Amino acid sequence: MTGTLAIGYSVSYALSCSTEQLSEEQKDVLETKIKETGDKIRVLKEEGADKATIAPIVQELLALKTQLDPTFNKAKKPKQQQNQKQSQKQNQKNQQKLKGNNNNKEDDSESDFITARAVDYSKWYSDIIRVAGLAETSPVRGCMVIKPWGMSLWDKIRTDLDERIKENGAENCYFPLLIPKSFLSKEAEHVDGFAKECAVVTHHRLKSADNKDDGLIVDPEAELEDPLIIRPTSETMIWYMFRKWINSHRDLPLKVNQWANVMRWEMRTRPFLRTSEFLWQEGHTAHATSEGALDDARTMMEEYATLCENLMAMPVVRGVKSPSERFAGAVDTFTIEALMQNGWALQSGTSHFLGQSFGKAFDVTFQDTDGEEKDVWGTSWGVSTRLIGALIMTHSDDNGLVLPPRVAPIQIVIVPIPPKKNDEEGKIAMDKALDELVAGLKAKGMRVKVDDRDFMRNGAKYFEWERKGVPLRIELGPRDVKSNSCVFKYRAGSGSDEKTSIDLNDAVQKASDGLESMQEGLLEEARSRLSNGITEDASYEEMRDALDNDEASSYAGPGLYLVPWKCDAENEDKIKTECKATIRCYPLDSNSEGLHEGKKCFYSGEDATHMALFGRAY
Amino acid sequence: MTGTLAIGYSVSYALSCSTEQLSEEQKDVLETKIKETGDKIRVLKEEGADKATIAPIVQELLALKTQLDPTFNKAKKPKQQQNQKQSQKQNQKNQQKLKGNNNNKEDDSESDFITARAVDYSKWYSDIIRVAGLAETSPVRGCMVIKPWGMSLWDKIRTDLDERIKENGAENCYFPLLIPKSFLSKEAEHVDGFAKECAVVTHHRLKSADNKDDGLIVDPEAELEDPLIIRPTSETMIWYMFRKWINSHRDLPLKVNQWANVMRWEMRTRPFLRTSEFLWQEGHTAHATSEGALDDARTMMEEYATLCENLMAMPVVRGVKSPSERFAGAVDTFTIEALMQNGWALQSGTSHFLGQSFGKAFDVTFQDTDGEEKDVWGTSWGVSTRLIGALIMTHSDDNGLVLPPRVAPIQIVIVPIPPKKNDEEGKIAMDKALDELVAGLKAKGMRVKVDDRDFMRNGAKYFEWERKGVPLRIELGPRDVKSNSCVFKYRAGSGSDEKTSIDLNDAVQKASDGLESMQEGLLEEARSRLSNGITEDASYEEMRDALDNDEASSYAGPGLYLVPWKCDAENEDKIKTECKATIRCYPLDSNSEGLHEGKKCFYSGEDATHMALFGRAY
Repeated sequence: MTGTLAIGYSVSYALSCSTEQLSEEQKDVLETKIKETGDKIRVLKEEGADKATIAPIVQELLALKTQLDPTFNKAKKPKQQQNQKQSQKQNQKNQQKLKGNNNNKEDDSESDFITARAVDYSKWYSDIIRVAGLAETSPVRGCMVIKPWGMSLWDKIRTDLDERIKENGAENCYFPLLIPKSFLSKEAEHVDGFAKECAVVTHHRLKSADNKDDGLIVDPEAELEDPLIIRPTSETMIWYMFRKWINSHRDLPLKVNQWANVMRWEMRTRPFLRTSEFLWQEGHTAHATSEGALDDARTMMEEYATLCENLMAMPVVRGVKSPSERFAGAVDTFTIEALMQNGWALQSGTSHFLGQSFGKAFDVTFQDTDGEEKDVWGTSWGVSTRLIGALIMTHSDDNGLVLPPRVAPIQIVIVPIPPKKNDEEGKIAMDKALDELVAGLKAKGMRVKVDDRDFMRNGAKYFEWERKGVPLRIELGPRDVKSNSCVFKYRAGSGSDEKTSIDLNDAVQKASDGLESMQEGLLEEARSRLSNGITEDASYEEMRDALDNDEASSYAGPGLYLVPWKCDAENEDKIKTECKATIRCYPLDSNSEGLHEGKKCFYSGEDATHMALFGRAY
Repeated sequence: MTGTLAIGYSVSYALSCSTEQLSEEQKDVLETKIKETGDKIRVLKEEGADKATIAPIVQELLALKTQLDPTFNKAKKPKQQQNQKQSQKQNQKNQQKLKGNNNNKEDDSESDFITARAVDYSKWYSDIIRVAGLAETSPVRGCMVIKPWGMSLWDKIRTDLDERIKENGAENCYFPLLIPKSFLSKEAEHVDGFAKECAVVTHHRLKSADNKDDGLIVDPEAELEDPLIIRPTSETMIWYMFRKWINSHRDLPLKVNQWANVMRWEMRTRPFLRTSEFLWQEGHTAHATSEGALDDARTMMEEYATLCENLMAMPVVRGVKSPSERFAGAVDTFTIEALMQNGWALQSGTSHFLGQSFGKAFDVTFQDTDGEEKDVWGTSWGVSTRLIGALIMTHSDDNGLVLPPRVAPIQIVIVPIPPKKNDEEGKIAMDKALDELVAGLKAKGMRVKVDDRDFMRNGAKYFEWERKGVPLRIELGPRDVKSNSCVFKYRAGSGSDEKTSIDLNDAVQKASDGLESMQEGLLEEARSRLSNGITEDASYEEMRDALDNDEASSYAGPGLYLVPWKCDAENEDKIKTECKATIRCYPLDSNSEGLHEGKKCFYSGEDATHMALFGRAY
């Protein structure tokens, strides 16, 4: 439902960055970053940071220099390893790990390096996921491990959305993971468009091989009569159950939702954006009337849009999919499309008006108030862990993840700088000030963490939380306590350039206000990028030339194109072939205003039927 | 981890109830129930209930009479169907539904009938699940559909437990659903004890059959090189990742948890108690020392026990599993065992001390403070949707589900009895009283629902909420409002026998107190059943004779036996063969008190090593 189907597989996720072709602009960015990183190391050394803390940043600096000049540093690597004084066993273990990890050939899983966006946006995205500890590749092709920081983002989204879903009248259920193969054939369009690439369960037992060294083998005697499919989506299972549950108009509307894992056998995967297994919610509703169903599909699109804007500070374009981009089996697919920093669109949630297609395919009828037996109307709607990918590419920067305060699992990290060992008085004053500050912030509903790890230098802590995107850092040292103050440092927005000393008496209120204005600032920034990122009145040739070479790795690309369009699947397909651009949607606002009226289609020259938003997309 | 392994498959879930062998006691119960149901129908008729409301209860009455006398009512069925004035299409649909529903041959999915516990406890259990709307069989063998009321119970358990897990330092993650076959062979005991009966994914694509009418077939060209297994539990995957994440003592302890679905190919299934797919949480931790791991395993057992007692009002016996009942790959398995109303034990949660077994199998080592490379110690622990089965069989009665207030999704249902149509003044007074009552209850944190469905009679509403186990019903009619009062009716405990008129000014406080004392009362009742249900000082012969014929369907059975025991797997197995009894655990309290010391084993006559709790178990 997050539309892994309609989007072409031709998208290239080029990860390699050809350093020979660096533009002057890219070189500038690299040089700035090299300077910043050098400064960071100097500060850490001044603070007396230990080698373990500084080493990864030195590696980052070396990597940056290598990126600017590939010949740099080639001879130095062996020496570095010796410097790290790793025991022989540790080295051996690391090498074994490298061998074992087939999915991640370069194994930079322990590197702290972030590629600059301007250098390679795709690589930057992977680096952010790694350094912020959001997710990791797993030993199963196309499946990721969602790590605690990533999971807590999903939990935040889930909690917010679950309430919206319940307010709209749907109740949570749980339906089986496995779907009988025959179910998928029931809805004609559904089967054509869907579920060919899926995980098929054919056996229900393993047994020990005759030769014990061969371990376990699939028991050929345990073959299932009817293979089962791991759900790619659950319309078929749920409409099978709806048939049992719906008899009368009094049973309608019937609205269910489930939070679940689903699986689609993807050829090219990227963490969060496109993985074989992903987490999502899928809502399914049944209605007595077409209007009831259509209204529900629109409402859920609107709820998704509000979720993105309010919680994630991510503005979206609300629209309807063109016929060829619709969900298989839907009459209409509503979508919300977000614009990533690189100018690519990301479909962030879809809501389908199913008409009577599944009702008819699964023979779900109801006795209406007039006594007549009628077919049931339906909708389905979902958002997935893909939203985390969208969140990353909306706000984050070259220093790491940036999280809008409302979605941040930790909104404020306090780094206390302990007084000297024999300063008992200072210790008591510090504990008191810290406790009061934490209590005050928590009482105002803010999510606070005190980072009191004693084996880490402050600089290393700052570095870590910056990469994880915690919105506000508060430093509290003995000198601050004496002057009844603390130091604020915001992760993004106004105030993020400098540290500010704040009176401890004002700290709670200022933190609360500061987080609120950071949330607003991030939304505002993303809003202006979205509106600047949509080009109007372009000719087809202009768009084609701009989008044809617009890879996911280029930052920032030309963005999206809003054009008059005569709805035509064949022409749509031609454009996709010519410049990889697809219709993201027919935006609701420009179409309801009738902006296309009296205009000619930018491709065919015929009378336009819609305003269409074209672009490259994830 | 909820121990589907160690428990024998020989357990018979006889669902049929042979009416010829009704005892006098069972006949008494049936006759009482017939009388009560007759009374209920009379009351409904007096209240002017419509036919649709009364019809299911009439059916219930007929079913009860048939149970007492199988020859009763045989000729009447066709006439009943005519009475219901179903359209021909509706009849046809129902028949198709019957045919389509292969898993549920008797298809009583729409019956409101509850078998009395004394008649057939197993059938009663299935009836409760059906009439309370907790779950339903699905078209996939052994997999259930969890319906909204059942799901909201799981969500309540999840919310409570998730907080406990986080307080104990574990963070939520998500690991892949699929596990490479080769992983399962890595830990020797794990592979022997586990994961033979599991769902195996062998292909990744379907394709259209050459003959279009055959629908989709498995594409033979899309066979996986290495089959994948749907996780039966995730130790192997998680320890594979731990290897990447653990290098130093600073990385320990490492504690992760996931809320997920798992699958074990079960031969005999029962909703919630034993299903092929079920929902659970699985926690996995890694530690630098044996003590650290053991402590964590014990702590989580204790958290589970507190969850059961505090939230679900379900007392448990804390204990350690005998070697033959341990989790495959564990050094020790801690368990909490609850006693169901029929005298059977239900393993409600387990926590495993894994020693270094998985650490060694997956080569997870860490550099300790002394610079030495050491193997990592581990634990894993889990509870599942099985807890819902335990909840049902702890508190519910012949009238339906009974929910302790803390776990009840709705704690109070208010049924307003609307004033007559032209009584505008009464309407205003009613709305005001109702709004104030709801606001007051909600302000005190109580979960309230107003059932204002206008197409249902009050009696039918009472009947429905009673079956769903809502702890308190408040009736509010025009006469009540005039006298500034309302009517309380508790679902269970003291006060449940009668309706009580309560001054509206006291209603909020009384409801709050009443729910609290109902929670305590249910726990107290279950506690005394547990302590009465454990027989001490029995001889082996006494136990054998009592348990041999103790089926899950008999209510109430002889319960559990606490006996001195010499730990011996062979004798344990003999006893299991002789009378189907297993060691539920070595209870922690009686063993720490050394109650076995100086005693002889009740089976072998040798010196006892433990006090063992024997019983029949789900």
